[in-house]
Amino acid sequence: MATRTPFDHVALLTDYGLADEFVGVMKSVITDIAPHARVTDISHNVREYDVRGGSLMLARAIQYVPRGVVVAVVDPGVATKRRMIALEVAGGEGILVGPDNGLLVPAAAMVGGVERAVVLSNTDLHLPAPGLTFAGRDVFGPVAAHLCNGIGFDELGDIVDPDILMPGLVGLPQIGTNEILAEVTWVDVYGNCQLNVGPDDVVALAAGAGRLTIVVDAVERSAGLVASFDEIPDGALGLVTDSYGMLAVAKRQDSAARDAGLGSGDQVVLRAPRPGEGGATTRVSLGKIAPERPRQ
Amino acid sequence: MATRTPFDHVALLTDYGLADEFVGVMKSVITDIAPHARVTDISHNVREYDVRGGSLMLARAIQYVPRGVVVAVVDPGVATKRRMIALEVAGGEGILVGPDNGLLVPAAAMVGGVERAVVLSNTDLHLPAPGLTFAGRDVFGPVAAHLCNGIGFDELGDIVDPDILMPGLVGLPQIGTNEILAEVTWVDVYGNCQLNVGPDDVVALAAGAGRLTIVVDAVERSAGLVASFDEIPDGALGLVTDSYGMLAVAKRQDSAARDAGLGSGDQVVLRAPRPGEGGATTRVSLGKIAPERPRQ
Amino acid sequence: MATRTPFDHVALLTDYGLADEFVGVMKSVITDIAPHARVTDISHNVREYDVRGGSLMLARAIQYVPRGVVVAVVDPGVATKRRMIALEVAGGEGILVGPDNGLLVPAAAMVGGVERAVVLSNTDLHLPAPGLTFAGRDVFGPVAAHLCNGIGFDELGDIVDPDILMPGLVGLPQIGTNEILAEVTWVDVYGNCQLNVGPDDVVALAAGAGRLTIVVDAVERSAGLVASFDEIPDGALGLVTDSYGMLAVAKRQDSAARDAGLGSGDQVVLRAPRPGEGGATTRVSLGKIAPERPRQ
Repeated sequence: MATRTPFDHVALLTDYGLADEFVGVMKSVITDIAPHARVTDISHNVREYDVRGGSLMLARAIQYVPRGVVVAVVDPGVATKRRMIALEVAGGEGILVGPDNGLLVPAAAMVGGVERAVVLSNTDLHLPAPGLTFAGRDVFGPVAAHLCNGIGFDELGDIVDPDILMPGLVGLPQIGTNEILAEVTWVDVYGNCQLNVGPDDVVALAAGAGRLTIVVDAVERSAGLVASFDEIPDGALGLVTDSYGMLAVAKRQDSAARDAGLGSGDQVVLRAPRPGEGGATTRVSLGKIAPERPRQ
Repeated sequence: MATRTPFDHVALLTDYGLADEFVGVMKSVITDIAPHARVTDISHNVREYDVRGGSLMLARAIQYVPRGVVVAVVDPGVATKRRMIALEVAGGEGILVGPDNGLLVPAAAMVGGVERAVVLSNTDLHLPAPGLTFAGRDVFGPVAAHLCNGIGFDELGDIVDPDILMPGLVGLPQIGTNEILAEVTWVDVYGNCQLNVGPDDVVALAAGAGRLTIVVDAVERSAGLVASFDEIPDGALGLVTDSYGMLAVAKRQDSAARDAGLGSGDQVVLRAPRPGEGGATTRVSLGKIAPERPRQ
Repeated sequence: MATRTPFDHVALLTDYGLADEFVGVMKSVITDIAPHARVTDISHNVREYDVRGGSLMLARAIQYVPRGVVVAVVDPGVATKRRMIALEVAGGEGILVGPDNGLLVPAAAMVGGVERAVVLSNTDLHLPAPGLTFAGRDVFGPVAAHLCNGIGFDELGDIVDPDILMPGLVGLPQIGTNEILAEVTWVDVYGNCQLNVGPDDVVALAAGAGRLTIVVDAVERSAGLVASFDEIPDGALGLVTDSYGMLAVAKRQDSAARDAGLGSGDQVVLRAPRPGEGGATTRVSLGKIAPERPRQ
């Protein structure tokens, strides 16, 4: 610890948006306290109050973030009794700072898990604040800057047992022999719908066919397993291995989310392709085995 | 002056938005002239041409901005006879650069007032420009960069009397004994509506009740005076002390602006709470004392 | 070459948007590999897949970008056989990195043309990637960072003949004696519509009248040739010399694009002003010479 190089990088992820001055003020505070620290924005456009979406974004990004401090703020419980915390990860090469509401833990898990946790109770390191509602400016930003100035992790406040931290909200797929119950973890700006399933998870189901049946809201569609968007025929859905190594429901230069009516958190069923299946859309009744009831 | 450390920070606030390359080009120009200067974006999403909104944002942010230069551009009169100016503040520790249209003066007032003012008439410090409509790139950005390179304030052009500057457009509340006529100074991205009134201003009116009556467009609603969004009951309005120490009309994880139909610049009347008031919405006639007229 | 100062600046232009973490991850990768390099965002809000719009934005911005590397990514063909390239320009003072789809070539032309071109086939300089769809993170960003670390241009891969590069998609105006057939190259956030015509191109047509007739979708309107938005009468269109020295159809504090129904790529006809023309809108039939047909 004694000979560790001080941090010189702070990465930021918030739901503050860019319409107001929130991000600029938080960055100003960091720069004012630690002028040598470089700041990189991961994103500030997490959907308002969407802790789950923010935690998934942070978990995707964390492996690419340089050594240093990460401040993440999606904090619907700001100024309540929810704790403000910092988590030490990766042998002390990274510190995650933010609210204890499940936002940080999935990212920590991606880089080996939480090694130490501290509640940010040392108010000497915070800004005196006229109100309690802007913890990014008054607590998280200053703490990150002080870490870059060499303040020790255990000077931030009371060390706590990582087991008491609020867990993350990331679902696991239900993988059966005939189908996989997957969930959309992310809809990106192009409308690609990332699933919580990777290509290895569907090998048995696809059985060498190179395609699967996707069921969304009782509508079945065939989708090829492809490596690039350009391999998807016009109008069809594809299952592309995305840039994080997960399967994403996608279209070629079009929004799969809009076409299939999918949003983050929605359920998608993956089934084996039907024999001779070609890619057409088939409407199915909700109970597939029961005979179709006539419409009134 | 002679021994002052050169500036190494430029903060930016504009209504350029991020759709075009305006911000990127202005920053490129600054970096090209003064590579050592660090640039922090306060925000570039001031509503187009909204000088008042931009001046209020700058006044909120200024106290957190590091020592150095601030460039602010909301400039509907670009390329007309409106002056381009720089203002020295805080004993020379800060210089505000932008158009003389009321945008800079409120921020200067927040940090002690204008000490010196200069019209940017020294065109040697500007970029030769193919057109006159991009002063951020051709005048304000280069001037900020030259200040970081050690150019003196009085080399920027003609020193002028600060009294001739265009004043700001920030209203003061009308504080009476029975009610306060307040104004929405800012609607943030979450829909919180900041008023030009602080918690101390309403102590007498609330008279220990911990709540006030808010009147918007003749609709009365009761709102508790709270320290955090989470203390506001679902569906109700609250008056939270916001992160700048002002009162804001707010809801819990919802938009008060949308609920109450409030926008920046709108009028809000604050009155003493009615005896036994619980938080329900009451429709009132415009003349409160007159008996209700029957509906036709 | 041997004694050249290493690069320390990377400019970025993409259609990634700011909703997701794409930009933040690409910047993290660059900073991780080349911590000394400074990164400036030109814009990340090129319309999705709009290679033409991105190439025009890059061509406008390039002259202001500091010495160093420029990474541009608008890449509908990602993970297909389209080449990934770098172009050396300006005597080696600038390197453009991106897909070979016409995005880079117009900008290179603006600064003197392509001097050397290389296909990014040296995969040792790329990140190992779980999927093929995020070339900004896995190829373009790392290559830019390695260039800042002193890797030579010819170490990036196979040098190719610049003549085989995909050309840009920028149209030239058709300048006749009685009219000019122009094209909207850009609609900025204020609704100003830049044309591919400069003030010198219309001198003969205007014949000293200081105004022209604009024809959009068979509607003729008179527009004054002005130097600032403020010279345009309320409600009227003007032709302002914009900040890049091109003519733009504009309104005073209003959107000309919305008023005239113009978008990027649309055609605009410029004609000599009619004698005594004052600025009124005139509806014309499509065949101007033919007598008006009665409406059924």
